[in-house]
Amino acid sequence: MLAYCGNVIPKQSVNMADVARRTGVSIATVSRALRGERGVSEATRLRIQRAADELAYVVSPEASKLSGGATGRVAVVVPWIDAWFYSRILAGIEHELRAADLDVMLYCLEESAQRESFFERLPLRRKVDAVIAVAFPLTAPERARLEEMDVTVVVIGAHAGEFPSVRIDDELAARQAVGHLIRIGHTRIGMIRTVDPEGQSWEGDIARVAGFHAALAGAGLADDCTVTVPWGIEGGERGMELLLSRAEVPTAVFCHSDEVAVGALRTLRRAGIPVPAGMSVIGIDDHPTAELADLTTVRQPVGEQGAAAGRVVVELLGGREPAERAVVLPTHLVVRGSTARPPEL
Amino acid sequence: MLAYCGNVIPKQSVNMADVARRTGVSIATVSRALRGERGVSEATRLRIQRAADELAYVVSPEASKLSGGATGRVAVVVPWIDAWFYSRILAGIEHELRAADLDVMLYCLEESAQRESFFERLPLRRKVDAVIAVAFPLTAPERARLEEMDVTVVVIGAHAGEFPSVRIDDELAARQAVGHLIRIGHTRIGMIRTVDPEGQSWEGDIARVAGFHAALAGAGLADDCTVTVPWGIEGGERGMELLLSRAEVPTAVFCHSDEVAVGALRTLRRAGIPVPAGMSVIGIDDHPTAELADLTTVRQPVGEQGAAAGRVVVELLGGREPAERAVVLPTHLVVRGSTARPPEL
Repeated sequence: MLAYCGNVIPKQSVNMADVARRTGVSIATVSRALRGERGVSEATRLRIQRAADELAYVVSPEASKLSGGATGRVAVVVPWIDAWFYSRILAGIEHELRAADLDVMLYCLEESAQRESFFERLPLRRKVDAVIAVAFPLTAPERARLEEMDVTVVVIGAHAGEFPSVRIDDELAARQAVGHLIRIGHTRIGMIRTVDPEGQSWEGDIARVAGFHAALAGAGLADDCTVTVPWGIEGGERGMELLLSRAEVPTAVFCHSDEVAVGALRTLRRAGIPVPAGMSVIGIDDHPTAELADLTTVRQPVGEQGAAAGRVVVELLGGREPAERAVVLPTHLVVRGSTARPPEL
Repeated sequence: MLAYCGNVIPKQSVNMADVARRTGVSIATVSRALRGERGVSEATRLRIQRAADELAYVVSPEASKLSGGATGRVAVVVPWIDAWFYSRILAGIEHELRAADLDVMLYCLEESAQRESFFERLPLRRKVDAVIAVAFPLTAPERARLEEMDVTVVVIGAHAGEFPSVRIDDELAARQAVGHLIRIGHTRIGMIRTVDPEGQSWEGDIARVAGFHAALAGAGLADDCTVTVPWGIEGGERGMELLLSRAEVPTAVFCHSDEVAVGALRTLRRAGIPVPAGMSVIGIDDHPTAELADLTTVRQPVGEQGAAAGRVVVELLGGREPAERAVVLPTHLVVRGSTARPPEL
């Protein structure tokens, strides 16, 4: 079954990802083709074999031993379970995978050190056919490790090199939110952005900040009004305190997420500033609390991102190319009572 | 390794649960003892063997084949993932099991038919060493199936025959809530109780209703003011509408849970009835929304129930008896702004 090519010396630095890149198919397809498994057309198999020969790639003994049999299991790695976003994603994934008779192995790895250790040990355990990494940044060594060990990987909520991904367009979502504030007359708009408990900005936050700046620039507005806080309601409380400490207080605030916005609303209530008459607030998510708090927001489909990732995994494990390798789901404005024209107009 | 007892004829109707009951140890311990595995003292092993002999119990071929080797995996079966209670429980379980190097296999089985089919197929799959069943009613055939197949089972949020369990005292929690309403002067108290999407009352709800009645009876109050709605915020909205339709409207309402109470508060807001001046509302949970809604409630530890169940599983799989086989975690009143003395006092 192994595709040894007698006339070349294996190079350790070449891996399946290189072969996949050269032939324009998925790593899973390369893996199947080189091991002689079903689900790959003869033409594709020949093309992949040719690319592997050219790159002097052989299935590594480690990868080959590991990839022996299908386990029927998919690891889902999340940084938190008991948070709305992650539990919704997880529900979407579990539903799709169970329908395909695949089992979900759940790993909650909150700290980046735990995640590193997990990815380091993964090849030794070989307990799963695929890994779905939910909304945390994969480091370069983690990506390399996953490519090497030849497991199917799908990433939710981020770009990650060659791996298939499912996400929203965070920059667009921010432009939808900030565009609404501009359209109803605001010219002094602040943003509360976030860092994780280890002080890092994640890809989604960076894209939302870019969208904030792009929307302001498009309207010819200044953009010096960004504050950075930790995720969550308390972060939002603190962020609004920081904005209220500015010499020029904004008339509207775009929050990284609805939970941050709920914290911002709490500070405004304690401060006696009426919403929306004295200040407009907008978030991103359409978290269930947004409806309770009458918060204007940009809705992102969450369970649907999990379900889409589950479907991509099912396709890949079945040896089929998914319809899209980079699924981007749409977001849209949900107008409620926390936004209105600015007080001075 | 099998404990055949030459002088008796095996009876199919006797199972490990019977042997465990007779010797006062766990089913897992019986299983270990009869298969000659480690982690059982010689004295206990002899005692179990004697009971098995007396009961004419032999390890069934099916159970013995299935129990061959440890998988290192634990199935967690929940009816929902993306609900606060279940995601918190799951987080607690995952944390404990990962610390013991056990993997979590997640099954979300919303409908009773799905659960039945899962438990029916479980023995054929033998993918796990243990099952944690979270807060749904195990039917008698499901319990029998689990006892037969000799897998370690822990139940959260319910009693379930011989199986170890982790829960709160729902009747006590209800008495804590209703007792508070009585103590501050209410004499006309209503309750919004719940049924699942299939119209069934669960054990927790039945116990809360019993606690409601017990508290009223203890204070010599009438108790004709109970309405039944489906779980959730919308159910709570409807429940309060039903109570407001009564000839004698209560001055205080005890809600099955905080989500139901949040719905009840919405109806009161729409009705223009001030809380707590015109109506007191109390829930159970201390859901994150309770703090946002300024809701008085009875706090139950949720992640802690998951963690405790995880620890029981780790003990049992290690061949040790857990400190307690029926863990009951404490609940306590959290007084916020949705309760006050009744208007007429």
